[in-house]
Amino acid sequence: MTSHTKYLWFETKKRQEIIDITEEVEEALRVSGIREGMILVSAMHISASVFVNDHEPGLWHDILHWLEHTVAPWDPKRYQHNDTGEDNAAAHLRSLVMGHEVIVPVTTGKLDFGPWQRVFYGEWDGQRRKRVVIKVLGE
Amino acid sequence: MTSHTKYLWFETKKRQEIIDITEEVEEALRVSGIREGMILVSAMHISASVFVNDHEPGLWHDILHWLEHTVAPWDPKRYQHNDTGEDNAAAHLRSLVMGHEVIVPVTTGKLDFGPWQRVFYGEWDGQRRKRVVIKVLGE
Amino acid sequence: MTSHTKYLWFETKKRQEIIDITEEVEEALRVSGIREGMILVSAMHISASVFVNDHEPGLWHDILHWLEHTVAPWDPKRYQHNDTGEDNAAAHLRSLVMGHEVIVPVTTGKLDFGPWQRVFYGEWDGQRRKRVVIKVLGE
Repeated sequence: MTSHTKYLWFETKKRQEIIDITEEVEEALRVSGIREGMILVSAMHISASVFVNDHEPGLWHDILHWLEHTVAPWDPKRYQHNDTGEDNAAAHLRSLVMGHEVIVPVTTGKLDFGPWQRVFYGEWDGQRRKRVVIKVLGE
Repeated sequence: MTSHTKYLWFETKKRQEIIDITEEVEEALRVSGIREGMILVSAMHISASVFVNDHEPGLWHDILHWLEHTVAPWDPKRYQHNDTGEDNAAAHLRSLVMGHEVIVPVTTGKLDFGPWQRVFYGEWDGQRRKRVVIKVLGE
Repeated sequence: MTSHTKYLWFETKKRQEIIDITEEVEEALRVSGIREGMILVSAMHISASVFVNDHEPGLWHDILHWLEHTVAPWDPKRYQHNDTGEDNAAAHLRSLVMGHEVIVPVTTGKLDFGPWQRVFYGEWDGQRRKRVVIKVLGE
């Protein structure tokens, strides 16, 4: 089994942001030379997500709106975690709902994706430096 | 490392449907000959899910009801994504909550599952041809 | 590819409980001798979760409160699944939201985690013996 590891750094302008990282994942695969296997793409923070969905700005708006109005409102007064001096408990809950990592299949040297599938970094508590790890494993 | 890749096709009669695919996953494992490793079972569309849960029709009803009434109501007017001409934004959100893929452990040539664990395809925008990829990786 | 498999047993005192299992995952990695690869940590029951988040008791309280008041109230009368004689349909839904398994990257013999990341077992229907499987895969 061969492996190749790469880190992506982010420092978003907005506190919440959704960023398409599919090209960075494809580049890591290219460098690895792996033809059959998988790619683990994982947030290295517990107030962020990695997920697969659609490259469509209206949908990104819907996701952010839904996280605030249905899933976990930001309002810091709702959460005990914020008694520690933090205000980001909602970002932790959003990370749990949206997922922490994805595994992308690799077949004949390519991401084995259907139409429209893209990999995203979801930043739920940004405006500071954070990381994602990409790990390609296979032959 | 050995790998074996198989695709499943679906075209559901209903727009939302939950389908047990455990036997297809076991068949892919048998064909692979792999004894120790893992199986990636992943939706190839962003309006569907793969997840592990219970083979119990009452629970499938509960999941579909909960997706509609608690998680993400279908009502197309709620979502900006649907301004593109789609009506399936809710299916995207349901895919995020229910999960995109699962990794099943393989030990001594079998799915290393506890009692009651089964693999399901969750179709959130069906009545058209869609795919799942099964990738067995190991030795 | 080398593999190492370990099982953890739980029998929680409370029906819902969140338990940090990071040290057990690190111990399985140590025993495996693997330097590059991944660790699959997966619940073997469909009313439990494995997830990555923060070692902070206020946050654990927030998660349990949010599962009851926002995600899936326990109230057995809400769910058809409970017509089978069970009362734990809510535990199944919580398992779907919180996730079934995680994949932890392994780089140079260590969990390749960012600051604050820890692995947790989430018990949503406890007070009985249940299991988690840890599978280390790599070289």
